[in-house]
Amino acid sequence: MSYRLAQKSLVSVLSKPLKMTQCNVQAKRGKVLTMESLNPHIKNMEYAVRGPIVLRAGAIEKELETGVKKPFTKVIRANIGDAHAMGQHPITFLRQVVALCTYPELFKDAGIPEDAKHRARLILDGCKGSSLGAYSDSAGIELIRKDISKYISERDGGIPSHYDNIFLSSGASDAIKFVLKMMMKPESSNPDRAGVMIPIPQYPLYSATIAEYDAHPIEYYLNEDKGWGLDVSELKRSVGAAREHCDPRAIVVINPGNPTGQVLTRDNIEDIIKFAQEEHLFILADEVYQHNVYADGSAFHSFKKVLTELGPDYAGMELASFMSCSKGYMGECGYRGGFTEVINMDADVKAQLVKFTSAKLCPTVTGQAIMDAIVSHPKPGDISYDLYIKERSQVLGDLAKKARMTTEVLNSIDGITCNEVMGAMYAFPQLHLPEKVIAAAKAAGQTPDVFWCFNLLEEAGICVVPGSGFGQKEGTYHFRMTILPSVELLQEMLDKMKDFHAQLVAKYS
Amino acid sequence: MSYRLAQKSLVSVLSKPLKMTQCNVQAKRGKVLTMESLNPHIKNMEYAVRGPIVLRAGAIEKELETGVKKPFTKVIRANIGDAHAMGQHPITFLRQVVALCTYPELFKDAGIPEDAKHRARLILDGCKGSSLGAYSDSAGIELIRKDISKYISERDGGIPSHYDNIFLSSGASDAIKFVLKMMMKPESSNPDRAGVMIPIPQYPLYSATIAEYDAHPIEYYLNEDKGWGLDVSELKRSVGAAREHCDPRAIVVINPGNPTGQVLTRDNIEDIIKFAQEEHLFILADEVYQHNVYADGSAFHSFKKVLTELGPDYAGMELASFMSCSKGYMGECGYRGGFTEVINMDADVKAQLVKFTSAKLCPTVTGQAIMDAIVSHPKPGDISYDLYIKERSQVLGDLAKKARMTTEVLNSIDGITCNEVMGAMYAFPQLHLPEKVIAAAKAAGQTPDVFWCFNLLEEAGICVVPGSGFGQKEGTYHFRMTILPSVELLQEMLDKMKDFHAQLVAKYS
Repeated sequence: MSYRLAQKSLVSVLSKPLKMTQCNVQAKRGKVLTMESLNPHIKNMEYAVRGPIVLRAGAIEKELETGVKKPFTKVIRANIGDAHAMGQHPITFLRQVVALCTYPELFKDAGIPEDAKHRARLILDGCKGSSLGAYSDSAGIELIRKDISKYISERDGGIPSHYDNIFLSSGASDAIKFVLKMMMKPESSNPDRAGVMIPIPQYPLYSATIAEYDAHPIEYYLNEDKGWGLDVSELKRSVGAAREHCDPRAIVVINPGNPTGQVLTRDNIEDIIKFAQEEHLFILADEVYQHNVYADGSAFHSFKKVLTELGPDYAGMELASFMSCSKGYMGECGYRGGFTEVINMDADVKAQLVKFTSAKLCPTVTGQAIMDAIVSHPKPGDISYDLYIKERSQVLGDLAKKARMTTEVLNSIDGITCNEVMGAMYAFPQLHLPEKVIAAAKAAGQTPDVFWCFNLLEEAGICVVPGSGFGQKEGTYHFRMTILPSVELLQEMLDKMKDFHAQLVAKYS
Repeated sequence: MSYRLAQKSLVSVLSKPLKMTQCNVQAKRGKVLTMESLNPHIKNMEYAVRGPIVLRAGAIEKELETGVKKPFTKVIRANIGDAHAMGQHPITFLRQVVALCTYPELFKDAGIPEDAKHRARLILDGCKGSSLGAYSDSAGIELIRKDISKYISERDGGIPSHYDNIFLSSGASDAIKFVLKMMMKPESSNPDRAGVMIPIPQYPLYSATIAEYDAHPIEYYLNEDKGWGLDVSELKRSVGAAREHCDPRAIVVINPGNPTGQVLTRDNIEDIIKFAQEEHLFILADEVYQHNVYADGSAFHSFKKVLTELGPDYAGMELASFMSCSKGYMGECGYRGGFTEVINMDADVKAQLVKFTSAKLCPTVTGQAIMDAIVSHPKPGDISYDLYIKERSQVLGDLAKKARMTTEVLNSIDGITCNEVMGAMYAFPQLHLPEKVIAAAKAAGQTPDVFWCFNLLEEAGICVVPGSGFGQKEGTYHFRMTILPSVELLQEMLDKMKDFHAQLVAKYS
């Protein structure tokens, strides 16, 4: 102990000599929390979507505000799936319901339609003390859990859903972390460590959480040549290779895909379920983009529905499906609303999940309220229906148009290829970079994708995220962009990207 | 590996024979997640505030609804600090501001005062896309961080606070978990494991989080004979005894106290700071009840203020202070708003904290908005000031009255003693139980405090939490009750409690 303290003290003295002149004892001893003494798992975490390039984008915006001259006048942010930040308007019905719940004086407001008032009254009746300010049960308000199970059952063509399996959460992220935490075996070292299969490329919440929990990531590659589909042979390869390093316990599938924008076929989902059963894996189905399917002939198939329809041999498999109010046509990211349906979870384990989540008391009640308005949206004949359907169709129609536009323009760029943006809100194009660009990146101390993205930001004012933040096959380079800027802005951005790429290649040829 | 799988399979076959007849392969193999294979740290967690007695209270309420006859007609819930659930009304200004931000059409509503509109406009200007539905920065909206630092500086008599040190969070709980996580050394086994000093009795978030993170809880006892104050000699004893089991890194102090209702004197806080410096500990000051001080001559002193005023020898100490919108006069628990001020955190470590929190994207933006309305509340001369101050005084005045009433009635009960409820929202009375009651508890397989609380629930319909959920000295028995029921209901509850206790003692004498 004393040796370690002495060492800390030495590090501190060497690295922060100025502090010494500030006289206090603390300085001599060093901080309690330093980069040396920090939890190493936190140090190892990466979260690209909010990484250095995004910080730099913010800094550039501040420079522009203070009058610094750039080759552009604004930064176009296509780094994060944040629809409202890009100008998308909220769905009126959702906000009316939440406003009524927030400030019940508004029930007297004749300008707010009765169906919104009816919905808000139901939600408030479900709240303790009829207030959004009371804690809810840890799993969420019972009424809202029931409304969600109704929504799921309708979505899945009548397959039953029980509210006892529904857990509300603060965004989908919290729920994903809760479920993964349940599977950890933190007392174990290799090769008994919990392994979690994740797609590559993947949404970095998964790699970050696996790093935080010190689990073993079992990376399986999506097949870029087959529209980012999942090959069972690749799943088998990855889990086989991982068995000597860990105890594989779960497989994460993101459908529709982030960052890839693919939508899995029903057959592909069947294969994945069969694989998971063979390998005795818990399925985590990240289905937050279930409303976001644009490609002709493509449809969203929930893992639960496919699993159920596969019949009794699969009916006992454990599955958690995640949903959020942040994506879809709603885009209500700031509300941090989300839910999970868990299927076939052992009853005692489910009780442990409730206990575990209860230490954080409850998910945000406004997030729950908006989720209720989402799953219990106006139906034909309701006063708010026409406006609701108009607003919803506008958003989803624009997204479909932008998905097509993105696929087309990207593929028209010499040196960029991109699978069809079938769903979700992203494209994950591949950069085919000349050797000289790769060499220039190396000289700059950056990977080629990071080099490309930083140059794009500095020269064209466009903020996208390097593929390395999501994972990509060795020797390939990608970036992720959202399709969320308005149609006009997206067109401007894609045009600028085309010019930028041509100039970059020209510069290094 | 195959041995373990075979074992799992065996356990499953033995424990769930029925499943076998349901034919599927899953059943033969057992679930992926079972009580045997569950993360053991989750299993070890306890969270008394929402524990079995609270579940039973809910079940009794359902029984009452269905007409089951009981010796009472309603359950009085005094188990959790949930003001709105107990009928407290929201502060109008706060809800007006949040409603305006939610549904900006309301800016046209002449019935909502201009100062609320002004505040809402500022908040929306701070939101990306002027929408509560956009993600904020992970640390929170810059404007709100600045408003919070202004509030802190005013609270502390002008001591500067910088917004760069302010991190918004989803309730105080999330922030407490984030900061503790930073200190963990999860790769280490005893005696190098991170140790965290926590008071006994404590708020169970701390013990639950320490169990989840597999850290070492260093329990220090609050001195019940000295109004639940902290004796430095006890702090020294506990840390000394713990050093062979762990590396002590932090001390948690809850002031005003939960579950004890004590308010620390300035001298006591000075002693704690000096102790923390000597022992090289990071201070976590849980100050969520900073508005809740009732005792004559008592006042809230923030750790930051006292530390700063102790002068340059202490000026470099690391401190995180936690605050919430759930307590105080606001009671807005469901909004999950909270913030932390970190002092003297190493700059690189602070960057790691930002990165770590960013994996959960951002704290709920409605929670941030209400926090802004709280710290930027109406000032004398503002349109909303009179109503605001009236509502606020009503809540805090009632709480002060209920704190006195609780202390008085509890101490009038033969066999119960209780320190003065100086602040927060709780009493933590001691039960002096006759030997025969203790024997009856033992016979029922319960600890005496759990036995007492369950009997109180079943016979009088009052839900309070056994002291063992918070920790108590060996051989002493307590319970925690909130003072949140209305004045009339609290009087009824205390009277019932008095009768119940007398009858219980009579029954076993």
